[in-house]
Amino acid sequence: MKTYAMTLQYEGTKYNGWQRQGNTPNTIQEKVEAVLCRMAGSPVEAHASGRTDAGVHAKGQRVSFRCQTFLSSTEIRNYLNHYLPQDIRVISLKEAPERFHARLWAKSKTYEYVICAGEKPDVFSRRTQYAIEEIPDVTLMREGANQLLGTHDFLGFSALRKSKKSTVRTIHNISVEIEGSLIILRFSGSGFLYHMVRILAGTLLEIGLGKKPVSVISDIFKTNRRELAGATLPAEGLTLLEVFYE
Amino acid sequence: MKTYAMTLQYEGTKYNGWQRQGNTPNTIQEKVEAVLCRMAGSPVEAHASGRTDAGVHAKGQRVSFRCQTFLSSTEIRNYLNHYLPQDIRVISLKEAPERFHARLWAKSKTYEYVICAGEKPDVFSRRTQYAIEEIPDVTLMREGANQLLGTHDFLGFSALRKSKKSTVRTIHNISVEIEGSLIILRFSGSGFLYHMVRILAGTLLEIGLGKKPVSVISDIFKTNRRELAGATLPAEGLTLLEVFYE
Repeated sequence: MKTYAMTLQYEGTKYNGWQRQGNTPNTIQEKVEAVLCRMAGSPVEAHASGRTDAGVHAKGQRVSFRCQTFLSSTEIRNYLNHYLPQDIRVISLKEAPERFHARLWAKSKTYEYVICAGEKPDVFSRRTQYAIEEIPDVTLMREGANQLLGTHDFLGFSALRKSKKSTVRTIHNISVEIEGSLIILRFSGSGFLYHMVRILAGTLLEIGLGKKPVSVISDIFKTNRRELAGATLPAEGLTLLEVFYE
Repeated sequence: MKTYAMTLQYEGTKYNGWQRQGNTPNTIQEKVEAVLCRMAGSPVEAHASGRTDAGVHAKGQRVSFRCQTFLSSTEIRNYLNHYLPQDIRVISLKEAPERFHARLWAKSKTYEYVICAGEKPDVFSRRTQYAIEEIPDVTLMREGANQLLGTHDFLGFSALRKSKKSTVRTIHNISVEIEGSLIILRFSGSGFLYHMVRILAGTLLEIGLGKKPVSVISDIFKTNRRELAGATLPAEGLTLLEVFYE
């Protein structure tokens, strides 16, 4: 048995997210495991750095798995790319330390949320953008972003009602960049709760549109009240960019 | 009645090309004219710089039309973008000289053909690339490209059996660039015959793969024999980049 680590990209549009689930068909994990099983001749479990929700994309998802094969790393990669659908692709694959686990070993992640404001999206990148008609004030969004930095309980910025596990996370950096009609938000942090990036993006957007004051962020941290935060923005605008390990 | 000129982009994947045709549904012209007719309250004919085939994309298709409306150019553009499907978008629109006609006035065009060689295509741009397993010799492709430059009868590089109209065209420039695993071919010329760009790309590809000698090009010019040229490459790799006017 060897352990392998790979970097995947996928267009999540038609998938029910990464994670295999009881009755929900069409997950990315299922597709990846099916090809690995075919290759190895026995079931193989694939662990991603974290689940991505239905419709969310990845440019640098990290996945680990263990299996026995005589194929080289390059051959495994080519095998996977040959049998995986066109919207899932292995960028790189190599042998990893025996106990490597893509989720347990992950130190931090960067997500990108792309908003196309006041313009119909470019037809060639429309599947990875969320289009809105109004143009938000980016300076306000940056002020809001600054309030989010650091270590906080992010329960109020998640879709979790309550949680037995800790909902404390650290956000290292948030950038808000403009490129033409695109507003590109990048969130780097130790980890993100269920729907957290989309709710953070939604809250910053509503701050930028003047629908909420910047001070709402400290109110949410104080009260953990989800209803104070902005809407959960659509999955299509969200992409997992990168996962960091030590 | 005013005359308008606009620049369109479209992802051609699901369309039967630009040109409205008797029984063939789902053309881009049809979609554009339907929205213009809705806007103007009477039929409007839209003329593109040239038809693009089924599955071919455009980043800078030029289209002219005449209609009577109280809307400003910006309002017409917004109206079109609102009602056109997500894979067709008006980049710009303005009033043009009364007799302007996007096809009749066009002086030259640039097409791009993108080949992804030896790699599974990036999932986010796969719809505009043609993927092959072998890696062609780009130096040979450039030698072939040089032989195509200038004014020639391109009948042998077209899907036309014979033509009453002239099949003489001028190619001003062909570039063959490498970007990672992509080979990007750009053809600029006075005009292109039916399937001509895809056959030129197919011929250069076969030269690059050593399946045909560079000298095949002069043989085709001498004999006009289509069967000497390379295959017609798939529509998905082809994009109309730009149309030039005086």
